[in-house]
Amino acid sequence: MQANHIPVRISRACAATLLLCAALTTVLSGQAQTDPLPSWNDGTAKQAIVAFVKTTTDESNPAFVKPADRIATFDQDGTLWTEHPLYAQAMFAFARVGQLAPQHPGWKTTQPFQAVLTGDKAAMGKFTETDWMQIVGATHAGMSTADFEQLVKQWLATAKAPRFDRPYTDLIYQPMLEVMQYLRANSYRTYIVTGGGQEFVRVYSEQVYGVPPEQVVGSSIATKYDNSTGKPVLMREPKPFFIDDGPGKAVGINLFIGKRPYAAFGNSGGDAAMLEWTQAGDGKRLMMLVHHDDGVREYAYGPGGGLPDTRVGTFSEALMTEAQNDGWVVISMKNDWNKIFPFDK
Amino acid sequence: MQANHIPVRISRACAATLLLCAALTTVLSGQAQTDPLPSWNDGTAKQAIVAFVKTTTDESNPAFVKPADRIATFDQDGTLWTEHPLYAQAMFAFARVGQLAPQHPGWKTTQPFQAVLTGDKAAMGKFTETDWMQIVGATHAGMSTADFEQLVKQWLATAKAPRFDRPYTDLIYQPMLEVMQYLRANSYRTYIVTGGGQEFVRVYSEQVYGVPPEQVVGSSIATKYDNSTGKPVLMREPKPFFIDDGPGKAVGINLFIGKRPYAAFGNSGGDAAMLEWTQAGDGKRLMMLVHHDDGVREYAYGPGGGLPDTRVGTFSEALMTEAQNDGWVVISMKNDWNKIFPFDK
Repeated sequence: MQANHIPVRISRACAATLLLCAALTTVLSGQAQTDPLPSWNDGTAKQAIVAFVKTTTDESNPAFVKPADRIATFDQDGTLWTEHPLYAQAMFAFARVGQLAPQHPGWKTTQPFQAVLTGDKAAMGKFTETDWMQIVGATHAGMSTADFEQLVKQWLATAKAPRFDRPYTDLIYQPMLEVMQYLRANSYRTYIVTGGGQEFVRVYSEQVYGVPPEQVVGSSIATKYDNSTGKPVLMREPKPFFIDDGPGKAVGINLFIGKRPYAAFGNSGGDAAMLEWTQAGDGKRLMMLVHHDDGVREYAYGPGGGLPDTRVGTFSEALMTEAQNDGWVVISMKNDWNKIFPFDK
Repeated sequence: MQANHIPVRISRACAATLLLCAALTTVLSGQAQTDPLPSWNDGTAKQAIVAFVKTTTDESNPAFVKPADRIATFDQDGTLWTEHPLYAQAMFAFARVGQLAPQHPGWKTTQPFQAVLTGDKAAMGKFTETDWMQIVGATHAGMSTADFEQLVKQWLATAKAPRFDRPYTDLIYQPMLEVMQYLRANSYRTYIVTGGGQEFVRVYSEQVYGVPPEQVVGSSIATKYDNSTGKPVLMREPKPFFIDDGPGKAVGINLFIGKRPYAAFGNSGGDAAMLEWTQAGDGKRLMMLVHHDDGVREYAYGPGGGLPDTRVGTFSEALMTEAQNDGWVVISMKNDWNKIFPFDK
């Protein structure tokens, strides 16, 4: 909002002194020279991003988008950070099961908790929606929103991701950070639209991605206002409220943002509706899918990858066909990215 | 986001030429001289608003709030525009009942539709939640979100509010517009948090209040993604999804914004939880209630008003007591506002 006032002030100042205009012009044009996407190899994907930004921010172009409407949405798991072998939030839930187990002796012999406590990966791989809701209910509810935030913070500070032995928040994709920054530098607002928990992601989204809490749309459980003590709290209840996945991503975008994105980035079938909804708008739109085809530097799954039937971040042959038919750009992590993580040399 | 870059550019330009700094200083300080709240009489309410803004934007004050956290929330009906004799959205629903009646001959003899079609005010005054949901289901659902937007636009363009014989969007409170503008000029983001329909208010919020759709939190019905024709739509379904009223306003603020407001403005019992939730944060917070005590220029209801038992915008004695006990500021429309509507002389 406030940004709207600044140009007015500058132009008034310009009227006051021509020297100022010359100085500002020098400074602004000087800043625009460097490559905004240094971790991207030159190719179709990088060119598509640059062409999209240049076209939609060029006032003389019929596809110009006014700054207030510049919305870009990003899936998180598998699009902004690593999702294999399992979503970070599932790892958080499993850790909580371990912490809470002493208070629930029955869990040792009751599924789905028994599988988590014994580390039975085969059983965990077959968890149903009902199993997951039981685990979420036991680990994500029954506390205030403020207490939940603290639990997530504590876990993030100590947990390490498998294979890389680093905090989960280190496993973010440098090229995607550059896309977000490039878009923001061109007055796009970047939203995360995740199937993961909205209140989970909001804990670190600002620090990790530069995305403030109010620009995180995600799945949520019900909360209940309780002012019985005179100090109001919102209590998290063990029942789902909104599932921001698949068709739910189009619903969530309309519900939380109320504007159609001009650019959308995903990596799995859960993102297809978000890309379809984005593309159905008029003017120029950008739809991109991250393809995990680099088993050396990260993981390989999806068409041509090493784990074609993975249930985490499913990229089916049908999705690849939809992408080809609709002109969505598929990003090859192996070929399009010269760097994957910020810590890569 | 983009606003963050501007000061950097200005300060670099300042380094380039001292003349620029002098010019900018003159322009900026010149702008700060005028009264930002000309429609407010000097008094407790006006002073509370000015003191709140000065305190929370003064970097040397312990209660300083960084711009990213500057959130202010406003109820709509009765706080930003007139809600009597009945909410504008209810009038829209009644008009839709009339339009749709020829397709539903049974409505002539079936409640609650019969009451609407015959203009039976006594019966309408006793509508239950179930009656209202039937009317909302019949008038607000069964079409796409895009078609609903068109219906609202068409109605707003032609409907006239009783007593004033003007479009509903004329009946907005000039003093509240000034508060919103004053807050925005001080980097606060202004959100509408309404018990009314989120998608109804989003149609006109930007034009009428300067509040973009993504800053409107409201009640909603379920929507369903439908891509069966290859041109995706979101269909509005006849079932409630979220009720943003009473305790729901605290829930909605957390769900949609994820940050606690520093200032909250309401006018009825449906806003109490929003004000409690706001006040429960640390630092300096501003809680205000509009009291409709001016039957000459608008309507008088609530304690001391002419319509103490009104069901529209109920301001009970208990709410007045809560306001007094908690230090919430009650705005007297009669005494605090020298102008009510923009069209007032």
